Amino acid sequence: MKKVSFIGSGNVATHLALGLQEAGMDICEIFSSTPKNALKLASKVGAKAVSSITDLDVQGVDVIIISIKDDLIHSVSNAIGVSSTLIVHTSGTKSMDELSKHENRGVFYPLQTFSIESELKLSNIPFCVEASNLEELEILKEMASLLSADVRITNEETRKSIHVAAVVACNFSNHMFALAEQLLLETGEDLSILKPLIEETVSKALDNHPKEVQTGPAVREDQEVLKNHLHRLKGNPDFQKLYQDISNSIIKLKNE
Amino acid sequence: MKKVSFIGSGNVATHLALGLQEAGMDICEIFSSTPKNALKLASKVGAKAVSSITDLDVQGVDVIIISIKDDLIHSVSNAIGVSSTLIVHTSGTKSMDELSKHENRGVFYPLQTFSIESELKLSNIPFCVEASNLEELEILKEMASLLSADVRITNEETRKSIHVAAVVACNFSNHMFALAEQLLLETGEDLSILKPLIEETVSKALDNHPKEVQTGPAVREDQEVLKNHLHRLKGNPDFQKLYQDISNSIIKLKNE
Repeated sequence: MKKVSFIGSGNVATHLALGLQEAGMDICEIFSSTPKNALKLASKVGAKAVSSITDLDVQGVDVIIISIKDDLIHSVSNAIGVSSTLIVHTSGTKSMDELSKHENRGVFYPLQTFSIESELKLSNIPFCVEASNLEELEILKEMASLLSADVRITNEETRKSIHVAAVVACNFSNHMFALAEQLLLETGEDLSILKPLIEETVSKALDNHPKEVQTGPAVREDQEVLKNHLHRLKGNPDFQKLYQDISNSIIKLKNE
Repeated sequence: MKKVSFIGSGNVATHLALGLQEAGMDICEIFSSTPKNALKLASKVGAKAVSSITDLDVQGVDVIIISIKDDLIHSVSNAIGVSSTLIVHTSGTKSMDELSKHENRGVFYPLQTFSIESELKLSNIPFCVEASNLEELEILKEMASLLSADVRITNEETRKSIHVAAVVACNFSNHMFALAEQLLLETGEDLSILKPLIEETVSKALDNHPKEVQTGPAVREDQEVLKNHLHRLKGNPDFQKLYQDISNSIIKLKNE
């Protein structure tokens, strides 16, 4: 297993292609609906940019990685010629069956948020792999282990639950930081004042069970502080409501 | 300014007393409603444990730091004999006026979450200081700067807003981690699978404005994924409702 081509040239495709090339694989062809981006990635990894999916040399590679917007996976998969080559997508939410046209198919889902600018160490990123048969699963495990020490065999149900958990833990906590920043800006402060506190909170949560290290007025059921905080948010009824709902959820989880 | 005594022997009192002693201050006396804890802290910092507030040598020190539960600050302050000694509390939410019995009073609020077991570098923790007059403010700035490079002069309004922001950014994001862990445990996974993603999310949020680096289905208004996630949470209607509310809040903030 040596040769891989990519459909897509966004953040995930770029990081994977660079990582796999560094690990010794040949990156053969890149197709993207934005030819400029395909060329850019192709030049980074010594691949050939192709301008149409039907031009891809499907049989000439071991794996084709489709790394594009979720909604397009099915139609793009259907545009690839039939072969016995392993076709995978990198989505956290889409079923492997989106690729059902292809006998050998799988999922190769890196559990991380990628930015095209930022350098990212792939080596500790969990890779969730699924495949239509054991032989192909071995190929994906091997390919993932070229990139990371954390390779996990999942199934569709598990992967979708992990994806919800990731949204809650990451997208939602980022929103909490955004709401906090909004409050701070109103008082002339900025988020930097919370940096040590946020870092310590995360470190404590990851070293323990977050439920067990929950602090703050809600888990203490400190009604006076909760009342004061709600009063302080009275100018923003939606935020006030959210503060109340999350506080209630903290109390509820504590009592479970 | 050399001598300080503590009322309280919990996490905050312990970290401050150790830090101030290391910085060269004399920790003179410790009072706690739990004499055993007062003795423990006193022995760590070479201080004397006293068994009654009225036994404190108020005039023999430059500052008395009250570091106890918010609700007790007022009555404890009233139990201290009148003097010109500077009396401060360490609360994020209580007014300096809780100490109004004392002519020279202030607030000495370290913006961090303390655990008694864990060693913590105080040097980058923001200290919010307030005082009843400029001379006492100088004393608190000087004392804080012995501990940390980040000393901020606040007022009651600012400090209370910072406290709400800290609850939102830290206590609420910890709850998001707890909810995510609950979901993962149901599928046989654990929170470790999200560690790289959480760390990258926080690092990105702190290096930018979190609003500007928000990712996920809500900010993309990806109705299909949102619908699937809500469906997946149908066994837990409260969590489902919270997922919807936070997603709505993300969309709302984006459009502001």
